[in-house]
Amino acid sequence: MKIDLHTHILPRDWPDLDSKYGYPGFVRLDHYKPCCARMMIGDRVFREITDNVWDPQRRMEDMDGENVSMQVLSTVPVMFSYWAKPHDGLDLSRRLNDHLADVVRDHPKRFAGLATIPLQDPDLAATELERCVRKLGLHGAQIGTHVDANPHSRRIDTLNLDNVSLQPVWSAAEELNAAIFVHPWDMLGKERMPKYWLPWLVGMPAETSLAICSMIFGGVFERFPKLRVAFAHGGGAFPGTIGRIDHGFHVRPDLYAPDNDTNPRKYLASKNRKGELVPARFYVDSLVHDPDALRLLLNLFGPQRVALGSDYPFPLGEAHPGKLIESVKLSIKEKKQVLSETAREFLGLSAAA
Amino acid sequence: MKIDLHTHILPRDWPDLDSKYGYPGFVRLDHYKPCCARMMIGDRVFREITDNVWDPQRRMEDMDGENVSMQVLSTVPVMFSYWAKPHDGLDLSRRLNDHLADVVRDHPKRFAGLATIPLQDPDLAATELERCVRKLGLHGAQIGTHVDANPHSRRIDTLNLDNVSLQPVWSAAEELNAAIFVHPWDMLGKERMPKYWLPWLVGMPAETSLAICSMIFGGVFERFPKLRVAFAHGGGAFPGTIGRIDHGFHVRPDLYAPDNDTNPRKYLASKNRKGELVPARFYVDSLVHDPDALRLLLNLFGPQRVALGSDYPFPLGEAHPGKLIESVKLSIKEKKQVLSETAREFLGLSAAA
Repeated sequence: MKIDLHTHILPRDWPDLDSKYGYPGFVRLDHYKPCCARMMIGDRVFREITDNVWDPQRRMEDMDGENVSMQVLSTVPVMFSYWAKPHDGLDLSRRLNDHLADVVRDHPKRFAGLATIPLQDPDLAATELERCVRKLGLHGAQIGTHVDANPHSRRIDTLNLDNVSLQPVWSAAEELNAAIFVHPWDMLGKERMPKYWLPWLVGMPAETSLAICSMIFGGVFERFPKLRVAFAHGGGAFPGTIGRIDHGFHVRPDLYAPDNDTNPRKYLASKNRKGELVPARFYVDSLVHDPDALRLLLNLFGPQRVALGSDYPFPLGEAHPGKLIESVKLSIKEKKQVLSETAREFLGLSAAA
Repeated sequence: MKIDLHTHILPRDWPDLDSKYGYPGFVRLDHYKPCCARMMIGDRVFREITDNVWDPQRRMEDMDGENVSMQVLSTVPVMFSYWAKPHDGLDLSRRLNDHLADVVRDHPKRFAGLATIPLQDPDLAATELERCVRKLGLHGAQIGTHVDANPHSRRIDTLNLDNVSLQPVWSAAEELNAAIFVHPWDMLGKERMPKYWLPWLVGMPAETSLAICSMIFGGVFERFPKLRVAFAHGGGAFPGTIGRIDHGFHVRPDLYAPDNDTNPRKYLASKNRKGELVPARFYVDSLVHDPDALRLLLNLFGPQRVALGSDYPFPLGEAHPGKLIESVKLSIKEKKQVLSETAREFLGLSAAA
């Protein structure tokens, strides 16, 4: 039994959004040859994709080939469009979420869904999250590691996930028992990375560490004790640099801890007085491509907080979902947790699903 | 025997550089009370420092208390001033290097030195490196993870360390047998990190990963096979994300490897056919504040490529240099390597020094 927490999907078609909303910057699909399309932004090719991005049948064939029981679907992060006018962001989110819910409804044993929500307007985002959970049966939302500056709202700052304006989203997620999956996007320092795919290889891990640190240092987990959050790519650069982050907490509390005086290690796995493992406060996926790095994740978070995630169907993902997990020494129980039970608990899926 | 590869020093005094060079942005020291000073940039306090930053006697007292035999001195990275006019950068470098050489000359058994060089002009930088090695007896240079944009040269791009214009520096370092120590500075994405010391906790590890990736992907180690380079803070985010970086090499060589088709793992430690450890192509210091992270470094680089570095005397450093190394299980030979021999080999210090 394998549940893949981290997979991306798009509809096959959608209207020309630049025309519909009246300003440029949105993604369109150019189906230039059978089974293939180009994701275009204006005249620029953002990414070449194949039909397993949009075709549930093709996905299920791939899943069967890899013994993946269920994929958790979320949009491709370039679709977040947090820079757009809030109501356009909502309109686009609704369109993507309705499509995603249709796929899940058609194949409820093979797919579960995480919505996208217009974080540029936290109240609209909370409203859409409620619709997706209560009406569409989705299990939560995938959000970015930050909220872009929004020229339409005259907001020139990028908001990190500690920003107090986002509290309606956390509050709604808690109330709805909705899972939040945080995925890096719009990578920091990308202007410094013109070559070598560096925004993906250096920028994304940094983004994710920034998001985790922001939520810890900003006290989000303190204010929303029931909020369930998972971070993509094994938490990016965070696990490998926890020593430095923890040390910062101890030596410069004036700079580091004005909003939360909790030691960051408190959010990680620990042993209780009986010697039992108490898992971490938040989740990560398993997408680290290295057995030593996966072992570090299991130590830092506990198997109850590490969930198989493959980034299907993109090339930086794990081509054989679960292969890395199966290569690491784990008990039968731990392996079951990482391959399916952790995702199930995170999403609030019933055991029968 | 402990050699601390990563320590910072400043002169006690220097002229007002804003006045001397005729434009603002340079650091000055405000000795506002005994034993303490403020590093000022214009009217802004950059950092409070104490007299162990500039006073060799105070440093040697601290070294004796921690059984540190030798400190390798380098300037504080904010002094790099790569944004300044090239000849002003050279003038400032010469001033700092002459001071550093004086300290080493006065206490040759306790201190060794790494110069600073004006990377905004690679030819001037190479010339100053030559002067520092041949005339002043320094062992190489500390450089930043990138070269800032330089408005005085009308260069609006930041240069990463793969940039071909830097080849005179690598070439000079090879010819002079000079060591290059790369330290993060001017952190990418800092505009996105207004709170919680994030430029130091998230930005610096990302900078260092960017520098390592740039030198690997740009083929610098291929073109300069004898060049010796060490990276601060245990290589930042690089070791913990090597799985992702390596995977990127395999799945998108078109994006990743246009300038160097060597697998990035080839630059890391490996076992040869006899089962002996072949160390990594480059060095890191040990400043990771976590035993699991240090073990990962030792696996990835080999003890011949991990050198004690404490960031003395700053708070994000290791207050008791070598304590983390001594907490990790190592053979006597390996411990000796990490505590002193690796630094000695990196610097080209004679065994008698």
